[in-house]
Amino acid sequence: MDDRIQGRIQVPLSEIREKMQNILTALGVPGEDAAIAADALLDAERRGVESHGVMRLSTYADRIKLGLIEAKPEMKVYENGAVARLDGGNGLGMVVMAKAARTGIDLAKRYGIGMVTVGNSNHFSAAGYYAEMIAKEGCIAIVTSSAAPSMAPHGGMDTLFGTDPIAIAFPGAEQMFYGDMATSASSRGKIRVYSKTGREIPLGWAIDREGNDITDSVEAMKGILLPMSGHKGFILSMAIEAASSLLSGANLSCESSTIFDYTRTTNTGHSLIAIDIAHFLPLEEFEERAQQWFDRIKNSTPRPGYEIRIPGEQGDKRRKESEEFISLRRETAETIENYIRG
Amino acid sequence: MDDRIQGRIQVPLSEIREKMQNILTALGVPGEDAAIAADALLDAERRGVESHGVMRLSTYADRIKLGLIEAKPEMKVYENGAVARLDGGNGLGMVVMAKAARTGIDLAKRYGIGMVTVGNSNHFSAAGYYAEMIAKEGCIAIVTSSAAPSMAPHGGMDTLFGTDPIAIAFPGAEQMFYGDMATSASSRGKIRVYSKTGREIPLGWAIDREGNDITDSVEAMKGILLPMSGHKGFILSMAIEAASSLLSGANLSCESSTIFDYTRTTNTGHSLIAIDIAHFLPLEEFEERAQQWFDRIKNSTPRPGYEIRIPGEQGDKRRKESEEFISLRRETAETIENYIRG
Repeated sequence: MDDRIQGRIQVPLSEIREKMQNILTALGVPGEDAAIAADALLDAERRGVESHGVMRLSTYADRIKLGLIEAKPEMKVYENGAVARLDGGNGLGMVVMAKAARTGIDLAKRYGIGMVTVGNSNHFSAAGYYAEMIAKEGCIAIVTSSAAPSMAPHGGMDTLFGTDPIAIAFPGAEQMFYGDMATSASSRGKIRVYSKTGREIPLGWAIDREGNDITDSVEAMKGILLPMSGHKGFILSMAIEAASSLLSGANLSCESSTIFDYTRTTNTGHSLIAIDIAHFLPLEEFEERAQQWFDRIKNSTPRPGYEIRIPGEQGDKRRKESEEFISLRRETAETIENYIRG
Repeated sequence: MDDRIQGRIQVPLSEIREKMQNILTALGVPGEDAAIAADALLDAERRGVESHGVMRLSTYADRIKLGLIEAKPEMKVYENGAVARLDGGNGLGMVVMAKAARTGIDLAKRYGIGMVTVGNSNHFSAAGYYAEMIAKEGCIAIVTSSAAPSMAPHGGMDTLFGTDPIAIAFPGAEQMFYGDMATSASSRGKIRVYSKTGREIPLGWAIDREGNDITDSVEAMKGILLPMSGHKGFILSMAIEAASSLLSGANLSCESSTIFDYTRTTNTGHSLIAIDIAHFLPLEEFEERAQQWFDRIKNSTPRPGYEIRIPGEQGDKRRKESEEFISLRRETAETIENYIRG
């Protein structure tokens, strides 16, 4: 791929990382927290999830400037047996969630399973980042979050739900299972890609403001997202919000606002469950059997025109290819440069 | 509805319950276990999930007769902190899972969260039954199971996965959230309904044996099921099987066989997580807020031709209508009568 033709540039990873950290520390974010936030965004970018990558930084920085996100949050952990509530002190979602992940790992190592619910937080980039962090410690990880309202309940047409993500990760002997998905049938970003080429979207992705099914991708950009597989995505979204918001005291998606609403804080809620594999069987035994299963799936018969991949495989490959240099859309790189110029 | 026209009959609930229990006790199943098994099947039937209801009993009974399910299983629980492994002793899935649910509730009350993985078990009817059992004790419940192979991995065409169900339940002040779903786009049962009326199935439900998309419902009956929403259902199925089978030592779906294969045991795996709400906030506060949310969703704008229901609402209503008499398909009722006649 010729990056110039695609409107992309190659940037040394260490350079963009330093710039991102500097933007945050200049706003009063402690160095360690800035490093976590930059790493989470870069990880999403490197895995190919641009919508949750570097382009997010300027919005987070704007919100810190406006006092809508705390640069130095006072986080409080309330442990109770194998579970904990974390008050994120309205800090950066990445910083808050990294602390929640460490707490969850600690609980899982002590009790076999740990759950942390998080309130008073903000958008945290990709859920998979924290799931992988937990899975690297020999755990099965489940990470969820409420989100800004954009999706209708099944059968409805008011945007009472977010695209409410869930990420799940666990280790195999040679690779990590890493699944990260929204519970909507599609994202607005994906519909935008269709609309740019005038392609029709599949039935079930979106409805118009009158509640009619639409396949016109340009119309869909003005429409309302639907839960994946109708009532099934609806079940998952409700479960995710119950864990992320009802248990934590955070806003439900229907009570929250988008990150681009600069009049109020979001009080976003998250949850995570960490399951320590070694409490059930020797970790190596689990990892071996998982890997044999992965291999059997990968070596099974593909459909014509398809490739069979274990969730996370493609992102891992992309990430490995960007250890020195990272490919950024020119406009994404410019948001960083503009911020530095002030 | 005129039941005669529909090929259905009304049976007193207590009468059918007694007959079902008698069939099992005659095969050596202890009375208490027979009561649990009958109740789980009747609950599914009454909620409208006939595929997991009374019609299942004769298959279970056949398998007990053939020594493929143990009438009096030796179950063993290995607790380790807030988690436990349960060896089901190849007992009836309903009996094994009811014990797992009680263990999970006990762990959740002690630690705030409890997880139980179950191996050496069998088909357990509807996952939601156990989720509701746990949620009634003031918990959020997650119940999963591996299943018989019938579904392809995303991008593949070998049946390496089951329809791997997940059920989630939690209490509101006036009603229970009860979500129970397969991770396949559709079930064979649902495709059968389409095929009987010659209706086309939506794209994404099934492929033929060459891996091509099909919408012809008659063809689809000979085809292979697909995960819901492509890679998303695939992510969930893999996660469900990791928890249900890798952690428990049970068969993965690709190692298992259908309940109609009378040459071998299934070694089915399940898992459950019980989260004690009161470890996070007062239960009443959670239930009140959940109910207000349910009401807001139910009172939001429906799409033309749709009704908005909280998951479980319709099943609850049906169950309430069948407290005295239950409506059974004539052929289902006959399987019971035939069994009694011998």
